[in-house]
Amino acid sequence: MKKILVLGAGLSTSCLINYLLKHSGSSDWMVIVADSNLQTAATKVNNHPRGEAVVFDIFNQPERKRLISMADLVISMLPARFHPMVAEACLEEGKSMLTASYVSPEIRRLDYQARQKGLLFLNEIGVDPGIDHMSAMRVINQIREKGGKITGFRSFTGGLIAPGSDNNPWNYKFTWNPRNVVLAGQGTSMYIRDGRYKFIPYHQLFRQTEKCTVLDHGDFDVYANRDSLKYREIYSLPDIQTMLRGTMRRPGYCQAWDVFVQLGITDDSYTIEGSEEMSYREFIDAFLPGTNGLSVKEKLARYTGIPINGEIMQKLTWLGIFEDTRINLKNATPAQILQQILEEKWRLEEQDQDMLVMQHIFDFELNGKNATHRSSLVVLGKDRSETAMAITVGTPVAIAARLVLNGTFRATGVHIPIVPEFYDPILQELESYGVCFIEEGEI
Amino acid sequence: MKKILVLGAGLSTSCLINYLLKHSGSSDWMVIVADSNLQTAATKVNNHPRGEAVVFDIFNQPERKRLISMADLVISMLPARFHPMVAEACLEEGKSMLTASYVSPEIRRLDYQARQKGLLFLNEIGVDPGIDHMSAMRVINQIREKGGKITGFRSFTGGLIAPGSDNNPWNYKFTWNPRNVVLAGQGTSMYIRDGRYKFIPYHQLFRQTEKCTVLDHGDFDVYANRDSLKYREIYSLPDIQTMLRGTMRRPGYCQAWDVFVQLGITDDSYTIEGSEEMSYREFIDAFLPGTNGLSVKEKLARYTGIPINGEIMQKLTWLGIFEDTRINLKNATPAQILQQILEEKWRLEEQDQDMLVMQHIFDFELNGKNATHRSSLVVLGKDRSETAMAITVGTPVAIAARLVLNGTFRATGVHIPIVPEFYDPILQELESYGVCFIEEGEI
Repeated sequence: MKKILVLGAGLSTSCLINYLLKHSGSSDWMVIVADSNLQTAATKVNNHPRGEAVVFDIFNQPERKRLISMADLVISMLPARFHPMVAEACLEEGKSMLTASYVSPEIRRLDYQARQKGLLFLNEIGVDPGIDHMSAMRVINQIREKGGKITGFRSFTGGLIAPGSDNNPWNYKFTWNPRNVVLAGQGTSMYIRDGRYKFIPYHQLFRQTEKCTVLDHGDFDVYANRDSLKYREIYSLPDIQTMLRGTMRRPGYCQAWDVFVQLGITDDSYTIEGSEEMSYREFIDAFLPGTNGLSVKEKLARYTGIPINGEIMQKLTWLGIFEDTRINLKNATPAQILQQILEEKWRLEEQDQDMLVMQHIFDFELNGKNATHRSSLVVLGKDRSETAMAITVGTPVAIAARLVLNGTFRATGVHIPIVPEFYDPILQELESYGVCFIEEGEI
Repeated sequence: MKKILVLGAGLSTSCLINYLLKHSGSSDWMVIVADSNLQTAATKVNNHPRGEAVVFDIFNQPERKRLISMADLVISMLPARFHPMVAEACLEEGKSMLTASYVSPEIRRLDYQARQKGLLFLNEIGVDPGIDHMSAMRVINQIREKGGKITGFRSFTGGLIAPGSDNNPWNYKFTWNPRNVVLAGQGTSMYIRDGRYKFIPYHQLFRQTEKCTVLDHGDFDVYANRDSLKYREIYSLPDIQTMLRGTMRRPGYCQAWDVFVQLGITDDSYTIEGSEEMSYREFIDAFLPGTNGLSVKEKLARYTGIPINGEIMQKLTWLGIFEDTRINLKNATPAQILQQILEEKWRLEEQDQDMLVMQHIFDFELNGKNATHRSSLVVLGKDRSETAMAITVGTPVAIAARLVLNGTFRATGVHIPIVPEFYDPILQELESYGVCFIEEGEI
């Protein structure tokens, strides 16, 4: 019997744990789910005879070592900052490890030692990062095998609300960490287009969107992710002329979000004295110049140049930002106050269904002709537990776990799934879980 | 004979050292000037019989201790981050200390120990911070003594080029640290006006300026400093309705600088790959959307909405940013590239004269009436060495040194010059050095 240790039983782990438990009988596995909250772990294990819920404190080093020493494979679904601590213990105890997070320099540095010990540390195997890498590299390698040259790659992902549950003017609800949504895009975004570097400072990001259409799922606006340039190296496309990764939102969202950026209320770097006593309206007013007789709404319209009866103002008004509601958060940052306002309005209801959308657009030269290929993915959530996020983050991790334990993966060292050894079997099995890319355009 | 140790012999120390040397005979002082560069120290001492230049490495702890142990008073003109190291040694050796820098929390924490040992650590005794505190508190206390209540305080300072040397379209040259000028204002500025908090994010800062006029020295635009709110506590004005500190520039500067902010080229948080090979024009182009047939200048005009033949564009063009000049800086940040462009054009020439401008505007209620008082200061540089900056930073420090050594100051602990014991004699003596405030409006 092999033991799989899953560290962390948060929101996105339901599909992962269900998959492991489902295969535990035929594969002769024991699945140990460890979380700082025993109840959270127990709920996920759901009394399965081959499951075990344990309480776990990442900072308890002997306990960490003991749990890992008993496992045959470790899956860390903890916040990314804890992965290095887990990886160190895995090295000491001689265990392979899977994560759905970006490879940090700390993890990257363990490559040699992991190879020496014959261990695999496979990362970025969820979604964005994960399914995006695998599906893109499959097409990129197909084009290369045909002798094609890739000149442009644009890749967009969005975690959104499904059309059937989309009932607010923003066409958006929180299907993922609200704090990350509020702080998204801070810093400068960089990419390359037609051979020229492009830099977009944060305060221009939501104004410089581009449009895309995904199959018959409608239109989306895309804003650029932080650093698209580094994917030239990761995908081995050093001479590519266009490389842009972005985040998808329904049309109109970015224009309205830009108002928050222009005001400065997405800032998380300082606290507002007396925020507890302020109303939402006073909060907004503090970011508007002028103290004349206009209403806050009129001042905002004049300041940002948005029409007072237009769609953007309707979105803002619907959030309640012009109302007398008391903030009730002590010494809060602007971003924390904004997050509270949004969490009341963008809450995912019990019956709501989420949606993950992804599209890659490949431009390439083949046999002297320019061509374009498009890969599109739409995954809908099943219920509150098996959300599109949980399916697309957890299932590829679970499949990878099976392929490690049954000896399919032979690689050792620190990896991300950009070679066929990893992505071929994972993408193939993902199709039976509804994660199917629609490929358009010949190669 | 008393020994004064001056640590650091940088640009702003010439007036300080000259003052100390001038008084060294009558006061029986020895002035030891220590700098990491012996020549820099020697030039300032200029073979004066009561001066001594020594080489000094702040990181050499025994040397630091030895130098400080021999002194009767220590003046640290080092970069502010080194003050805590100096202060610790002053505590150990039982020496008082002067600095022209903002009191850091590390220095503030030494207050009790300094008191216990009967030492004075007097900080913020140059200009902004320094002369601004002293001149403002003098008027604030005068108004209070008459029974007045201060309702508003606005205080503006600018380090600028004197009209006689002002020969470029920006009406600006670097009279101070260029890097600080390029990075000025980043973060969010906060102040209070008419009882309401106001927050200005960086990308709006140079658009929300206000105007002021100083005597017959013309008009200025003012942008808000980072944190005006904390001065309510420092000046003991907890209930003041308006508190705003700002930086002065000649009209037109802020509008043109705003173009750099909008583009994002004042960012110092990332480096541009291949910057060495780029031209100034390509650098600007990388921050402009669109790749169509327009020139970079046309694209910039369209993107920012500034007229292509207007004054703002003339300022930008004069800097050479649309030219083919090679950057020649490897892996530079945008801010470093911008600084290089500006340093070529905003260089202070040998014969150039700088100018320090300051204005406080006090609103107050007295005997049931509302009144306004205005304090204004204009100091012109004498030559390349005795600049307005060197006069206004160094002279008050030097005067304070004399007043410490002759026993005028009796206070102990960590202080800034906001009480009459400090500001009365310093402001009085400063007048003989041309640092004279013009007071307008009755109190």
